[in-house]
Amino acid sequence: MNIDTYNKMTALAREYYQKAGIVVREDEQIEVADFNLGMVEKVGLQLCVYINTERVCAKEMVLLPYQTCPEHKHIASYGMEGKEETFRCRYGKVYLYVSGEGKKENINGVLPETDTTVYHEIILNPGEQYTIMPETLHWFQAGLEGAVVSEFSTKSTDETDVFTDKRIVRETKIEE
Amino acid sequence: MNIDTYNKMTALAREYYQKAGIVVREDEQIEVADFNLGMVEKVGLQLCVYINTERVCAKEMVLLPYQTCPEHKHIASYGMEGKEETFRCRYGKVYLYVSGEGKKENINGVLPETDTTVYHEIILNPGEQYTIMPETLHWFQAGLEGAVVSEFSTKSTDETDVFTDKRIVRETKIEE
Repeated sequence: MNIDTYNKMTALAREYYQKAGIVVREDEQIEVADFNLGMVEKVGLQLCVYINTERVCAKEMVLLPYQTCPEHKHIASYGMEGKEETFRCRYGKVYLYVSGEGKKENINGVLPETDTTVYHEIILNPGEQYTIMPETLHWFQAGLEGAVVSEFSTKSTDETDVFTDKRIVRETKIEE
Repeated sequence: MNIDTYNKMTALAREYYQKAGIVVREDEQIEVADFNLGMVEKVGLQLCVYINTERVCAKEMVLLPYQTCPEHKHIASYGMEGKEETFRCRYGKVYLYVSGEGKKENINGVLPETDTTVYHEIILNPGEQYTIMPETLHWFQAGLEGAVVSEFSTKSTDETDVFTDKRIVRETKIEE
């Protein structure tokens, strides 16, 4: 991702925080994940990590309209059980897909350009939440208005996430 | 606490969530802690527990103007290390006191009617946060406008909290 794209995405993310009534300080960094796919507005994620210690992590995520966080799971790593995470929708609408019953043909979201295998649909409106246990495949997408989603979890070790689409590299490189 | 007081405090808490732009669903329970002291508007706390599993807990707390959560610490219990918690102010102002340098005479908050021993002051405005490690004595109070504070933590086991003021009983009884 080049620096102009990064700046554009972080500026958009800040607009969403504002619309959602969430204060993110100017000195707090917004991370943009493009999964090394070069189509961040379609497959990508913006986030502000509030805290990430050995035991607890909390983030505020932003998804643009129909932007998708691609399918992945959190496996055991560094001698710890995989990450457990709860998503709570704060603004907009989230289409969340996890393993379980559900057909590709019946989803209300839009199939992304990345590989997906799970289609059990959970729709989250503001004030609604869902907990994803370790090792559970999942992907999620915002609706028409985009979304702001709080994540409450155990330690984040994004670098050990396992993505279904093998083209994906989690670490984002920003080029000046 | 009688049921009328409980209903009054939960209604006020819901007003604060609304002012802070935080959606709490009608079917989500608001807990009111009066610490068995019978002066909940002065020493008390309202909270909505979003999630509390073996590994992660997240809550949205409300404090009325100058309402105080009394001094306590989170000790090891049930074979686990004590609770680690991060407070992030979402609305209003929080005066947080932890062990460390700081004199009783110099604090910007108001001394509560319950015993206190720590006076290292941290002031949190919206978007500001602080992490409290296990075994750290702390108490906190809202400013003039009240406050809404997100808490991100390890598992909550409120019943094992150790309070400085020995009159306190953490479990709240609501009488019809």
